[in-house]
Amino acid sequence: MAHKSDWTKNAAGRWIPPEINGEKVIPFKGIGKHRPSGNRYGPPIRTSIDYPPDGNKQVETLKDALVKSGIRDGMVISTHHHLRNGDLVANQVFKAASDLGIKDLVWFPSASFPCHEPMIEYLKDGTIHHIEGSMNGALGRFCSEGKMRGVGVLRSHGGRYQAIQDGEVKIDIAVIAAPTADPFGNANGLYGPSACGGLGYSLADMLYGDRVIVVTDHLVPFPCIPMQIIGNYVDFVVVMDKIGIPEQIVSGTTRITRSPDRLLIAEYTARFCDAAGLIKDGFSFQAGAGGTSLAIGIYFHKMLKERGIKARFAVGGSTEYSVKMLEDEVLEYMLDAQTFDLTAVESMRNNPRHPDISIFHCYDFHGKGTYTTMMDVMILGATEVDVHFNGNVVTHSDGILLHGIGGWQNCLHARCTILPVPLFRNRIPIIRDEVTTLCGPGELIDVIVTERGIAINPLRTDLLEKVKNSGLPLKSIEELKAEAEALCGVPEPVDFEDEVVAAVKWVDGTVIDVIKKVRRNP
Amino acid sequence: MAHKSDWTKNAAGRWIPPEINGEKVIPFKGIGKHRPSGNRYGPPIRTSIDYPPDGNKQVETLKDALVKSGIRDGMVISTHHHLRNGDLVANQVFKAASDLGIKDLVWFPSASFPCHEPMIEYLKDGTIHHIEGSMNGALGRFCSEGKMRGVGVLRSHGGRYQAIQDGEVKIDIAVIAAPTADPFGNANGLYGPSACGGLGYSLADMLYGDRVIVVTDHLVPFPCIPMQIIGNYVDFVVVMDKIGIPEQIVSGTTRITRSPDRLLIAEYTARFCDAAGLIKDGFSFQAGAGGTSLAIGIYFHKMLKERGIKARFAVGGSTEYSVKMLEDEVLEYMLDAQTFDLTAVESMRNNPRHPDISIFHCYDFHGKGTYTTMMDVMILGATEVDVHFNGNVVTHSDGILLHGIGGWQNCLHARCTILPVPLFRNRIPIIRDEVTTLCGPGELIDVIVTERGIAINPLRTDLLEKVKNSGLPLKSIEELKAEAEALCGVPEPVDFEDEVVAAVKWVDGTVIDVIKKVRRNP
Repeated sequence: MAHKSDWTKNAAGRWIPPEINGEKVIPFKGIGKHRPSGNRYGPPIRTSIDYPPDGNKQVETLKDALVKSGIRDGMVISTHHHLRNGDLVANQVFKAASDLGIKDLVWFPSASFPCHEPMIEYLKDGTIHHIEGSMNGALGRFCSEGKMRGVGVLRSHGGRYQAIQDGEVKIDIAVIAAPTADPFGNANGLYGPSACGGLGYSLADMLYGDRVIVVTDHLVPFPCIPMQIIGNYVDFVVVMDKIGIPEQIVSGTTRITRSPDRLLIAEYTARFCDAAGLIKDGFSFQAGAGGTSLAIGIYFHKMLKERGIKARFAVGGSTEYSVKMLEDEVLEYMLDAQTFDLTAVESMRNNPRHPDISIFHCYDFHGKGTYTTMMDVMILGATEVDVHFNGNVVTHSDGILLHGIGGWQNCLHARCTILPVPLFRNRIPIIRDEVTTLCGPGELIDVIVTERGIAINPLRTDLLEKVKNSGLPLKSIEELKAEAEALCGVPEPVDFEDEVVAAVKWVDGTVIDVIKKVRRNP
Repeated sequence: MAHKSDWTKNAAGRWIPPEINGEKVIPFKGIGKHRPSGNRYGPPIRTSIDYPPDGNKQVETLKDALVKSGIRDGMVISTHHHLRNGDLVANQVFKAASDLGIKDLVWFPSASFPCHEPMIEYLKDGTIHHIEGSMNGALGRFCSEGKMRGVGVLRSHGGRYQAIQDGEVKIDIAVIAAPTADPFGNANGLYGPSACGGLGYSLADMLYGDRVIVVTDHLVPFPCIPMQIIGNYVDFVVVMDKIGIPEQIVSGTTRITRSPDRLLIAEYTARFCDAAGLIKDGFSFQAGAGGTSLAIGIYFHKMLKERGIKARFAVGGSTEYSVKMLEDEVLEYMLDAQTFDLTAVESMRNNPRHPDISIFHCYDFHGKGTYTTMMDVMILGATEVDVHFNGNVVTHSDGILLHGIGGWQNCLHARCTILPVPLFRNRIPIIRDEVTTLCGPGELIDVIVTERGIAINPLRTDLLEKVKNSGLPLKSIEELKAEAEALCGVPEPVDFEDEVVAAVKWVDGTVIDVIKKVRRNP
């Protein structure tokens, strides 16, 4: 790839510019090699006497709250994504800012969804300068085509917490959509018409935000219990008619894949885990809410039940399937950072073994330990993997930004990280010589499971030894790649321009890769 | 009182030295007048990779943990007081430090108890330089007699949180005794042989401590749920045989006063609240666990029950009596910062309407609001009150340090602050021309209830108006004082030397008064 003379080749072999959005960057130094100095950020000290003595922090409108929060050009405004594709709040924040004539804001969401496509208008009219957070669908294309004025910054969920905590990103105004809240600002996601479960993605925003606005459509008298959001950190409360579209927030049911190929991948994954001795009493795992992951969970459930053993804990992404594991006593604790369906919301309300946790707990690389290093089995996805087991989750092979990193980078630190992926998607092979965008170094990725075979990272001689006589279709990653290419051909290289449109941060705040502008088809 | 030329008369008329323990002090400026600038403190950034990947942070002994925490001369070591007079941990911390030959530590407890008398040994041998926290009994006498090398610093519970949060006190090592914990450091006070309920006094220590040590006698496998203490803030875990003496931690039963005078005070207090229109549907109150307070609670319970109305919330200090109010549906929420008996511990475990909260929630003056300004009725004690309604809770009329401030100063901000106190104790009148030590300004103290009459602060014309025809024995504070003096005589003035032995901080970190050395009887 083209790069200028002042760029640096980072420890993963990717070229990194000296600055992003006018700020110096630290190139990735290798896993665990960057030891930051200094202290965590502390937001400004406030005095309680400046808040209403009756505890009523309500203001009429979101716009009023933004004005009272001192909104001005160039500020960083954060939102969370617990309302997922049903979020009605984030767009309104920037609509209000646009109406106020505010320019050059940084939108700092914990993730974005297709429902946030209207942000393109505010990117175009100058209200938003750039986005630091996932850019999918239309926003991803907008960024990839070089239309965003600033450079997008992609961080993992844990990396977002780390960046806030370490003062790398200072949130001027945090807007926390809350399915239930009281006038003091205590809030939770458990009750109300827009119930979404936990609100853990906004913990850092609450703790470190200069001004914090809670927006709810279900106001209860003080005290709102439980207090997932603590009112003593909150400046203003806004009541709206509707903060979300329920059917887009939580699905009534989550769906297991019916694709025969995906079911085969799930079966191979479960058999691999068993053969490698990972499924044992007291083990721990994390699996997402995608169709293949759910199918793998079903296999785990069955194995545990048959053998009369239990998993000690799972970290979620919870669904009706993980709730069934809890209720069936094959899983002792569901530590839940994101609640995907109504059964899971109900479980979090009532089951003490299903507590809400935050990203700080499970993923913050600059905490005093994380949960992921304790986890035996980690099931993750990827858009691409390369022959060095490097992974990509943000761009597809056409170079266009398509996904956020989510917790993916953070999860790589588990004891056995497995990527169950189809060998190709839309006739484009997943396994490449080199990933288009590097999101996670191959030394942390242990196993690739496809419908045509399983490749184990040669670094994991222990795993190779354990499963060698399992009867599973073990292949080298090169063999898998060759099989895919024999069927689909080698994908064309992407035609990138030199302009950097987004940076990918590693979990410690260093830059592991950059994403360049895609040349538009003439 | 004598004072040097560089002292300042603060807004409450007390003379304050320019420095305490070599650090500049800000004299009290008046209620709500001190607006701090700057940012909250942030402890050093850590990297998770420096912690054990299996999440097991156990070290063999408390001494090992202190050594690994880098203990050295002059550090600030904090402990909490949830184990009350049954605490077996704090003394061992300083025994270990003394064995290691460490000198000049600052002990920064959230409160001290008679069981901490052995600290005198470590004050004498140079291990501890001074105490910042309550000094009662033998420790209070030791300090009042000028035997402590440094100056004691007394803070309210909320003031302690404020001081830590604002970086006024930097905790080098926080030692958190935890009735249940896992090897990662997650912990709670709900289970185990030393169960004490919540652990909220140690929240600031956990959040802001440079190194955090959890000490438990009841280790459970990860994850310890609920996580009142979050392992991601914890450096080391130590397992001991016994962290506390159960019968000294929580009482099996709390006792209501049987003294006819105290019962009369309780009755007057309840009748006053009723006459003043404070007992209404949805009201809120706080009452302690002392015998008179409990009796007042019984009156409240009865009134609410008879009228078919409910209190919305109480802040505790919870006991079997507040639990009965919850269960009897005359109280909707018990927000509990300290759990006094086993019935209350059991209730906190099982009743979602009885959540644990921290001092940050209810009392931190530098939070974005506090609970106390929302509370309708606040019942507090005092060792002395003066004719200007100023209050003292730390010294008795002999000048000797006897109590900590607890939450007393923080609570003064309630809508109606009532001090039910006997007119005299051991034939020494409670009402003075001037309090020996000023802990709270009279403008925040609304009503004094004694067995011989009720005095309402003349500033509260609204209350005077409401109760004027109630038939209650209303008197001026001067009348009450005169009655007491007619019976007991005027107490002798205390013979103080010039040396300052302790400072009393206001809730905002300013100094409201100092305590001087008491001249020993020849």
